[in-house]
Amino acid sequence: MRDVMVVGAGMTRFGKFFDRSVRSLAEEAVADALADAGAAAHEVEFTAFANAVGGILQGQEMIRGQSALHHTGLLGSPVVNVENACASASSAFHVAWQAVASGSAEVALAVGAEKLTHPDKMRSFAAIGTALDLEDAPAARALLAAVLLGWPPPGAPAAATGDVDTPAADPGPTGASLQSSPFMDVYAAMTRHYLSESGGTREDLAAVSVKNHRHASMNPKAQYREPVTVEEVLASRVVADPLTVLMCSPIADGAAALVLASPEAMARLGVPGVRVRASVLASGRDRTLEEPSVAERAVHRAYELAGVGPGDLDVLEVHDAAVTAELLLYEELGLCSPGDGPKLLASGATALGGRVPVNPSGGLLSRGHPIGATGCGQLVELVDQLRGRCGSRQVEGARLALAENGGGFIGADAAATVITILSV
Amino acid sequence: MRDVMVVGAGMTRFGKFFDRSVRSLAEEAVADALADAGAAAHEVEFTAFANAVGGILQGQEMIRGQSALHHTGLLGSPVVNVENACASASSAFHVAWQAVASGSAEVALAVGAEKLTHPDKMRSFAAIGTALDLEDAPAARALLAAVLLGWPPPGAPAAATGDVDTPAADPGPTGASLQSSPFMDVYAAMTRHYLSESGGTREDLAAVSVKNHRHASMNPKAQYREPVTVEEVLASRVVADPLTVLMCSPIADGAAALVLASPEAMARLGVPGVRVRASVLASGRDRTLEEPSVAERAVHRAYELAGVGPGDLDVLEVHDAAVTAELLLYEELGLCSPGDGPKLLASGATALGGRVPVNPSGGLLSRGHPIGATGCGQLVELVDQLRGRCGSRQVEGARLALAENGGGFIGADAAATVITILSV
Repeated sequence: MRDVMVVGAGMTRFGKFFDRSVRSLAEEAVADALADAGAAAHEVEFTAFANAVGGILQGQEMIRGQSALHHTGLLGSPVVNVENACASASSAFHVAWQAVASGSAEVALAVGAEKLTHPDKMRSFAAIGTALDLEDAPAARALLAAVLLGWPPPGAPAAATGDVDTPAADPGPTGASLQSSPFMDVYAAMTRHYLSESGGTREDLAAVSVKNHRHASMNPKAQYREPVTVEEVLASRVVADPLTVLMCSPIADGAAALVLASPEAMARLGVPGVRVRASVLASGRDRTLEEPSVAERAVHRAYELAGVGPGDLDVLEVHDAAVTAELLLYEELGLCSPGDGPKLLASGATALGGRVPVNPSGGLLSRGHPIGATGCGQLVELVDQLRGRCGSRQVEGARLALAENGGGFIGADAAATVITILSV
Repeated sequence: MRDVMVVGAGMTRFGKFFDRSVRSLAEEAVADALADAGAAAHEVEFTAFANAVGGILQGQEMIRGQSALHHTGLLGSPVVNVENACASASSAFHVAWQAVASGSAEVALAVGAEKLTHPDKMRSFAAIGTALDLEDAPAARALLAAVLLGWPPPGAPAAATGDVDTPAADPGPTGASLQSSPFMDVYAAMTRHYLSESGGTREDLAAVSVKNHRHASMNPKAQYREPVTVEEVLASRVVADPLTVLMCSPIADGAAALVLASPEAMARLGVPGVRVRASVLASGRDRTLEEPSVAERAVHRAYELAGVGPGDLDVLEVHDAAVTAELLLYEELGLCSPGDGPKLLASGATALGGRVPVNPSGGLLSRGHPIGATGCGQLVELVDQLRGRCGSRQVEGARLALAENGGGFIGADAAATVITILSV
């Protein structure tokens, strides 16, 4: 397997862009990434395009990449449409990496583009829910809408939430089942269980959000750039006790793209790049008490491939769809011992300026979470961190970076996790 | 790039299975392919799963592979969901091939599974139409439903059609635009233009269908196994003059799967395999008069990679969504000179027993066309041909085989074509 370099990275701002299309967002990210790489569209020999909800929200069930990239000049070369729920974009990166690693392409492109906003917000929630159409679809949909997007269960306190989502009072088609859903109880119990096992508190959960909102305040591409306080996070609307809306990632639109190249192609382009040390995709059962999670299995393999350990990392982007996930991931990725997530957070190690900053971009919580674009968004941040281009949120001297992007249903048999390790 | 072998192949029969799910179909194909390879599910290190209409027809918008493969034991390893309209399954094969070629997997699986039937047939037609949501969606949808699935324009003669589709008299939501569609005129004109340029006749078009139905009569996995005559084809219902319903591929359900392996893994499994000499995916503008088609570009590259030419081929499977496509593909793939498609067909060269049999399985026309499974179905046939396992339809001494699988809209900027060359 030959070396693969990332030689270009570009993204739109993430946010709510009611007047923009998936195509418009994809075009901006692709143009930025190609310009960054000094590459012309005709030099790209393979494109993996990620999108998750374009079928249900925009009616584009097939050939989404060919449609979005119609005017980019890329369509002469192969386009493959890749989907893995919230891990779609990192899966596309993985496929593009394989194209270069296999020698079948010298220059490849990974693009993630998603338009999650819809004039009828209930349609956005419904679209997300279809990620989870497994054994118990209505309950799973209700849960995901709640934990991922801050859709409140009926009757929950409707506290002011600053600039985050303020969904309509109408609980929507599946709202009635939210409070009675066994999944809801399971998730709330999982979070409470985590807090009791770790000795963590609701304030620790809130502190994840505070940290990531502070990071996002330094990121011009982030959706929400206003810092928040622990008190504000705790006082925001309850989604699923103990989670409040400011502890959950918001609805967003956006696109991100990366140009991958062989070392020879990078030399020809004459641009600086970062090296892909590992790209590992895992599927299967997510967190259970009995066996390693998908993330644990994937990161174990990624460390092995890269020849590094968690102590070597300088900066990470992780899938903080809700705050609990970030704390659990500290432990699963080996940044600390099991149960020590809250302690690691409280030490300041994972904040900018700390030993190993996590989510300097603001993470899903604040940079935003346009499902099929998120994984590429994480990688754009890390590539820029490794190239020293992140301004006030730059992690000084960052040389080794890790991204974790998860998709599918937490607690069910349908998760996908991609771990990417990059180095200067 | 290292060698990649196909060491297992399996498929369901293609047909209309109202009582079966995508999961049930996928499970059968995967079990057959793994048994054929002598491999256990846990030995598969990467799976690329193809499906095209599961979002709109079954409501499974995301993680379709993880859902379909839930009970197969495959989910511990990576699953990537791949889509490229009618070329979805060969695109999944391409991605699985890259996984092995890159060295990131020793054993990989490509699966295509599709359930196109629906109790409400109009929903099947509508699902197909969404493949084409480009510049002129309603017209494109109407056209595809017509040319691909035999949906008759209102007012067309409703001749008896044997065991092929007999769509309801209701022209459906987009039926009203069929006769006035400029696309409709363009496609009909293209076929008439082809006939006049090549000196071909309506009988030549019919002869493609006769040949492929005869081949399918020898294939237990084919949807339609009754031979038809030129007279029956010409007398069947007109879809778009000069195309009749027996000149168009039918609605089908089905699944097909292939196990790919490195030469080392094949030796470990101890099974015979065939070699992937080339896997080439191309996107972009399809047939125009001014420039090479996607298929021409892709096959040129594939011949180059494999170090072979069209004269070396022993057997082919090509994307005969309608009869005109097979004749055009004879020319685009270099089996004959431009305009000589009908002559090549009439010579008997492309029939079983001829110099270079095309679509020994019966092709899309008769084996059936479950969109996201078709490309893998073609490859299952060729792998079996190269291993001498095809019984009465065996191409004697077949050593070099080529598959062409096309997706997207003919005449627009959204096509994808995959060329796969296999050898003993």
